[in-house]
Amino acid sequence: MRELPFDATDPRLAAAAWSRIVEPGDEAAGTLADNLGAVGALDWLVSTGARGSVDAERSRPWHAAVGRWVPRLENLDVRRELDALAGLGGHLLVAGDPGWPVGLEDLGAARPFALWVRGALPAEIRSGRGVAIVGARAATAYGEHVAAELGHALAESGVGVVSGGAYGIDAAAHRGALAAARSSASAGATVAILAGGVDRFYPAGNTELFEAILATSAVFSEVPPGSAPTRNRFLARNRLIAAGTAATVVVEAAWRSGALSTAAHAARLARHVGAVPGPVTSMASAGCHRLLRESDAVCVTAASDVLELIAPMGEQLATDQPVQAGLLDGLDPVSARLLDALPARGAAAVANLARSAGLGSSEVRSALGVLELAGRVERAAGGWRRRREP
Amino acid sequence: MRELPFDATDPRLAAAAWSRIVEPGDEAAGTLADNLGAVGALDWLVSTGARGSVDAERSRPWHAAVGRWVPRLENLDVRRELDALAGLGGHLLVAGDPGWPVGLEDLGAARPFALWVRGALPAEIRSGRGVAIVGARAATAYGEHVAAELGHALAESGVGVVSGGAYGIDAAAHRGALAAARSSASAGATVAILAGGVDRFYPAGNTELFEAILATSAVFSEVPPGSAPTRNRFLARNRLIAAGTAATVVVEAAWRSGALSTAAHAARLARHVGAVPGPVTSMASAGCHRLLRESDAVCVTAASDVLELIAPMGEQLATDQPVQAGLLDGLDPVSARLLDALPARGAAAVANLARSAGLGSSEVRSALGVLELAGRVERAAGGWRRRREP
Repeated sequence: MRELPFDATDPRLAAAAWSRIVEPGDEAAGTLADNLGAVGALDWLVSTGARGSVDAERSRPWHAAVGRWVPRLENLDVRRELDALAGLGGHLLVAGDPGWPVGLEDLGAARPFALWVRGALPAEIRSGRGVAIVGARAATAYGEHVAAELGHALAESGVGVVSGGAYGIDAAAHRGALAAARSSASAGATVAILAGGVDRFYPAGNTELFEAILATSAVFSEVPPGSAPTRNRFLARNRLIAAGTAATVVVEAAWRSGALSTAAHAARLARHVGAVPGPVTSMASAGCHRLLRESDAVCVTAASDVLELIAPMGEQLATDQPVQAGLLDGLDPVSARLLDALPARGAAAVANLARSAGLGSSEVRSALGVLELAGRVERAAGGWRRRREP
Repeated sequence: MRELPFDATDPRLAAAAWSRIVEPGDEAAGTLADNLGAVGALDWLVSTGARGSVDAERSRPWHAAVGRWVPRLENLDVRRELDALAGLGGHLLVAGDPGWPVGLEDLGAARPFALWVRGALPAEIRSGRGVAIVGARAATAYGEHVAAELGHALAESGVGVVSGGAYGIDAAAHRGALAAARSSASAGATVAILAGGVDRFYPAGNTELFEAILATSAVFSEVPPGSAPTRNRFLARNRLIAAGTAATVVVEAAWRSGALSTAAHAARLARHVGAVPGPVTSMASAGCHRLLRESDAVCVTAASDVLELIAPMGEQLATDQPVQAGLLDGLDPVSARLLDALPARGAAAVANLARSAGLGSSEVRSALGVLELAGRVERAAGGWRRRREP
């Protein structure tokens, strides 16, 4: 094996190279880099590949891993991918960079080696305090409506919205957040994390959406330009969505769904998980109901529920929904019971009220006093009667 | 105060009298009867009422209670109510009767003194192993559909369905159960527990429904014929629905709703509570979502969830929903990844597959062996290709 054609002692280039060599989430590579650094690990791999075999004594556990990695050393030149990224106006991020998103380090050995970023990653996403809104591609109009509302309301509250750019729930969440960003400068941004390279938007039908996201914030991937969005990479991508946010909210998901894998990653990483319920007759909500039944996912019905979820303890509480004051509101139980016992029309004597309400006469008299003061009853021929609301 | 006109030493008549004297759930009366028995307690009340005051030394705490009860001694003659019940073909149940429903004793001092029953209380309700299906009167078509489905499926499984006979969810649940009973002799029955006397069905618009319930099982109340269904009695009635069943399932409920009081009673009595989710855009489901967020209520999407809830541990498990076998089902992760890396059309060589899948050549070869045996790949000019499903 010949030398690598780029400066493999440059930590950024070495990290970029590793993101080309491994499939996302390869924990063996992460562990190797933990011990040797990206440069040292790459040097070891190149020399091991050159010898054609792993030193049997010292490196037996690495045999399979090296077998996976060596084929990709052939023709490896990350300057090509970096040039392609630069041509798109993008930039590379590696761990330790100021722009590296908070939270990804929680992935440990499964963390990404590098992020290939187009656009500018906004602070509310880099902080790791954004919210992931994910769900089915085969979403219903209901699901898309709720995802768009959530995306909009969260962005309006200054929260960053992260999703995967897929059809259905993902796209609706991005669109909702974008609409908020267009109408307010202080609104949170939305970022799409792709499973394939950022040089080709997938799905192509969402290209306009990706362009709109790029215009205000960023799109990124852990695999270099030219990488296809394989199934394996979609599943691995979900761990980035979960790790890079404070909470993952699933809006619609079938009984088995990629969105549930994102939720599982989030739970494993001690992130909050929310699930939006829907009609039990809708298969598109079956995965959400499964989360509510089988996991610690919280039932999310509005953005306020999500804000409560991610707020530092005691900082923000979902306010109860406004309710119409009822006839018996604000009354003590005895007065309420007495008011209930008063005939709808006409008056009643204290003795009759006592019998019908099942109260003692003195209780009836004091409750009548309370109700009179509250303007709910009045004296009348024959006893007491209800007072009509003014 | 004169003597009572009926044999107040008959425990059944005394219990019936107490159910006429007190408002439902009067814990002072229950405590008194716990200590003196219904007969002794009634005797004490009559003599206390005759003296015109409670013995200040020994009975101060009972002063307010006696004040509530004495007015209803006037003209008290439960033979009238019992005659009225007999005229309707009904019968009285008191605690200790063979037909007394299991579970009501968990109410302690708030237990009912007697049940005024029309029809025959079926075994699957008397056992206390029935399920309460409750919810909003102002239900949506969705809620009524789900309530009817649940009632039908539970009854079909031989489970008794208990509800309150109200419009909306209650009526739909009763109707679903009745439909099951009509088509199968082994189906569970449905029983309505009323807030007012069983001589007048409330709401009157559900009279046909009540008649249909009566034709197969029973309708009962803890207040005697002639009692109006007051708000207070509705709330108290809810504790009977909760105590007399193994689980309470709320199908639709507004943010504040009587159905939530039934659920609260059930939780307090250590019964299971289930809540059926619905669209977050529907105010009729807000109370159910509130239960899912704020309580230990279980998310219920089908009768199987309820059966799992009430089954003795380990006896019955909700079966996972059937799922379509996917392309990668049943494959180990490496084979799945390799299959994913195979081009959709044409063949690929092992070295190329290793690079695109991020696997070592020996892993690729063994995975190809697995996939070939599974009939998923075949050898072709230039390497390996996918095999079309037969």
